Amino acid sequence: MFTVLAGGVGASRFLQGLAHATDPSNITVISNTGDDVEMFGLHVSPDTDIVIYALAGAVNPETGWGLTGDTFAVVDALQRYGYERWFNLGDRDLAMAIHRTRLLHEGVPMHEIVAGLTAAWGLQCRILPMSNEPIRTQITGPDGVLPFQEYMVKLRTETDVRSIAFAGIESAPPAPGVLEALRESEAVILAPSNPFVSIGPILAVPGIRDALAASKATRIAISPIIAGEVVKGPAAKMMVTLGHEVSAVGVARIYAGLIDVMVIDEQDRALAPQVEALGMRCLVTDTMMTSDERKAELASAVLSQVAS
Amino acid sequence: MFTVLAGGVGASRFLQGLAHATDPSNITVISNTGDDVEMFGLHVSPDTDIVIYALAGAVNPETGWGLTGDTFAVVDALQRYGYERWFNLGDRDLAMAIHRTRLLHEGVPMHEIVAGLTAAWGLQCRILPMSNEPIRTQITGPDGVLPFQEYMVKLRTETDVRSIAFAGIESAPPAPGVLEALRESEAVILAPSNPFVSIGPILAVPGIRDALAASKATRIAISPIIAGEVVKGPAAKMMVTLGHEVSAVGVARIYAGLIDVMVIDEQDRALAPQVEALGMRCLVTDTMMTSDERKAELASAVLSQVAS
Repeated sequence: MFTVLAGGVGASRFLQGLAHATDPSNITVISNTGDDVEMFGLHVSPDTDIVIYALAGAVNPETGWGLTGDTFAVVDALQRYGYERWFNLGDRDLAMAIHRTRLLHEGVPMHEIVAGLTAAWGLQCRILPMSNEPIRTQITGPDGVLPFQEYMVKLRTETDVRSIAFAGIESAPPAPGVLEALRESEAVILAPSNPFVSIGPILAVPGIRDALAASKATRIAISPIIAGEVVKGPAAKMMVTLGHEVSAVGVARIYAGLIDVMVIDEQDRALAPQVEALGMRCLVTDTMMTSDERKAELASAVLSQVAS
Repeated sequence: MFTVLAGGVGASRFLQGLAHATDPSNITVISNTGDDVEMFGLHVSPDTDIVIYALAGAVNPETGWGLTGDTFAVVDALQRYGYERWFNLGDRDLAMAIHRTRLLHEGVPMHEIVAGLTAAWGLQCRILPMSNEPIRTQITGPDGVLPFQEYMVKLRTETDVRSIAFAGIESAPPAPGVLEALRESEAVILAPSNPFVSIGPILAVPGIRDALAASKATRIAISPIIAGEVVKGPAAKMMVTLGHEVSAVGVARIYAGLIDVMVIDEQDRALAPQVEALGMRCLVTDTMMTSDERKAELASAVLSQVAS
């Protein structure tokens, strides 16, 4: 069994490759729910949904999130009732949120809801929320504290991040199956996701970091930073304002002590010695994932580290 | 002030005429909420919404409910999660349900929600739910008890109605403003709606029938039965199975003792003496409402009874 700690777009692309490189029924995804949000009274889990849509081949390839060909009649119509339009939830995407919200109100735990969604989309892999309890990533910028989606979508990350908190995390145990997956996997892979707001909240759930540290699995992280930049999202900007070196080495330092292998891009080959100096192996390979073939090749290269 | 007890399609057409025949700000609508339903975890108020959409000029004229040109992406997408498709809620119609549901979960009382919706659609009239508490019309047929929308929409009324109940009504007081409207209006008009499942539940809310009986208003009912048939809905079929004469006289008998004037169609002119024999005046006029002009003419004819 392979377990992947996953955020949104970057993780979903890696998982597409992994599901081609190995039997998807061997894959367990631990999904970040720190960027979940209540919009229009509906519970939206952006990262989990991106992973489901991507693995189902239904994700909008232009945005990396949402459904291909979705329409926006409901969010348009909601403006009449005073809602802002910045959270662009498509109609078919919203159907999933309606279903999830109904089940949550009925008291169904999130891991069962996600299992049902995964099955509804015909996926063979297992997706677990990091916790069944609500955890909300909050960004502190120069003008105060923002819920994550307001920072991410409404402000388009155009504010300096000074600190990050995960509200509710102290009393949020890992979802059923999470710790077992970390203990019993052959490999635990930290997807090429944002270390602060995608992988960070997962590791901050009480018990998860310790279980990962104690796991006999090969622990492999893939750098989301390539040639000093990020493919998508605010990771590079956050590294700057939070005082990190914006490079694969900076990412490796964040995960140092917790991982056995760091995967960096060919373009960063010169950084390998610095990564290895942190006490981990360094795999240099193509991590750009610009096609289905390259996604699967990256996954195969990562899995080759497990056998070795 | 004129107060109208209103169901769905028939009432909404009459109200369109009334809003042309008089200043809409003089109109108070008391709306049936007995056919409210939870669909996909969302609270839908079919009768109230039909009235709002009709008065806003946005109702789909072909169906009499829903919004002109609405799409159905969400209900289509919900089928993946195991929902049945029989309740055909359009995307823009669903936006209203999402908004209402959010407010209900936040504890906002229904009459405030409806006031907000009325304002959002730019209406000048006042619409009051019959009660802020949940009341659910239930139909007993040969195979047992059905929630109203299952009878109405899923079974397309194709079952014999043996009895009708309004679950929760004993403990459901009239919404704020309802009794005052009945007491202080110049006229109370029972719209040409189903006497059993549209007007019936309103009159069954504790206190409403008594307030209407004691009111000094001119009380006027418009028959939904024309020439032994109903323009829309199951009223005629219900009259048969519940043992009533299917005619304007049958309707007048149901309201006898509670109204001062019964309005019947030209086609039923010969029934006027039978109606008057029940102790009420009978206005014979065109009640078909097949055009905006005829709707307004009917409303003017009804209002002429108030002055007299």
